[in-house]
Amino acid sequence: MDVIEVIKKRYSYRGPYQNTPVPREDLKKILEAGLAAPSGCNKQTTSLIAVDNPELVNSITKLIKKNGFSGQSAPAGICVLTQKIPAYDDKYFYMQDYSAAIENILLAVTALGYASCWIEGQVTEDSETQKQIANMLNIPAEYTVVAFLPIGIPKAEGRRPKYKAFSERAWVNAFGSAT
Amino acid sequence: MDVIEVIKKRYSYRGPYQNTPVPREDLKKILEAGLAAPSGCNKQTTSLIAVDNPELVNSITKLIKKNGFSGQSAPAGICVLTQKIPAYDDKYFYMQDYSAAIENILLAVTALGYASCWIEGQVTEDSETQKQIANMLNIPAEYTVVAFLPIGIPKAEGRRPKYKAFSERAWVNAFGSAT
Repeated sequence: MDVIEVIKKRYSYRGPYQNTPVPREDLKKILEAGLAAPSGCNKQTTSLIAVDNPELVNSITKLIKKNGFSGQSAPAGICVLTQKIPAYDDKYFYMQDYSAAIENILLAVTALGYASCWIEGQVTEDSETQKQIANMLNIPAEYTVVAFLPIGIPKAEGRRPKYKAFSERAWVNAFGSAT
Repeated sequence: MDVIEVIKKRYSYRGPYQNTPVPREDLKKILEAGLAAPSGCNKQTTSLIAVDNPELVNSITKLIKKNGFSGQSAPAGICVLTQKIPAYDDKYFYMQDYSAAIENILLAVTALGYASCWIEGQVTEDSETQKQIANMLNIPAEYTVVAFLPIGIPKAEGRRPKYKAFSERAWVNAFGSAT
């Protein structure tokens, strides 16, 4: 699918998923898309764990639901990890790095006919949740769990958020100018 | 072009650009791709200014070269702005928001046959540079300039960075596991 079409098609899906599993070859394509994102000074601070073991997916979903995520369990998901290391001097870009990786993942997910949602606040807002996910997936202390991205075929089309008008957010050669 | 293909084709280009201008309709597509990125609680904290006035592009490029960017002047570019407002309570996601928008922009740029480079450190590392760009583009104080993305047709293929092996950064169901 054309990249600009996919970019416009992507949205945050919070509804129920079909039970259909996500084949490993699709998960691999999705992981590869994430790893192909740029990173500050090429430090490659982002790592990914695909989760398709139903017990693990359920346990993670339960944790993020407790923290207020309104979405439903998906058959699979991607756990996003970062290493909080500097790109140079005291400059850190790991947040930019994993965000670009997540956007790539969401686009690959959309292109392959699945839906997802960027769940970060419900993962990071208490360190206990992060610790529990790290324990479940055997994640060493140098890595921080920052997001979980459920993946599955949506049962129905979800609701799209309202976007501000183009002219309120994009201009040419000067703030507020259309020309 | 297929989205996963574009994701893999994208890379940070630091070489010289052809003088060929970037048509406004392409800049518009690129801006739209950026604005279509997700944002924490849909706060849409990212705004964009396309720059194709040669004097402005040169002035901005001069500033970031002074700060160490090794790339060459392009015929156009996108200036990325953010509003540092909370998504909820004291939770801020503006950095994730603009990073996802930048990745969308870089993918649209690649799909349309241009090259670019995510220039952030050289823009944000001294507040004087940010202030000067803000003055040039008439940007109000509530917005912060966080990145500049040159856009143009590359004179030649640039060098791609080395990526770690897939197995060093992506796993299934547990850290370090391939199955």
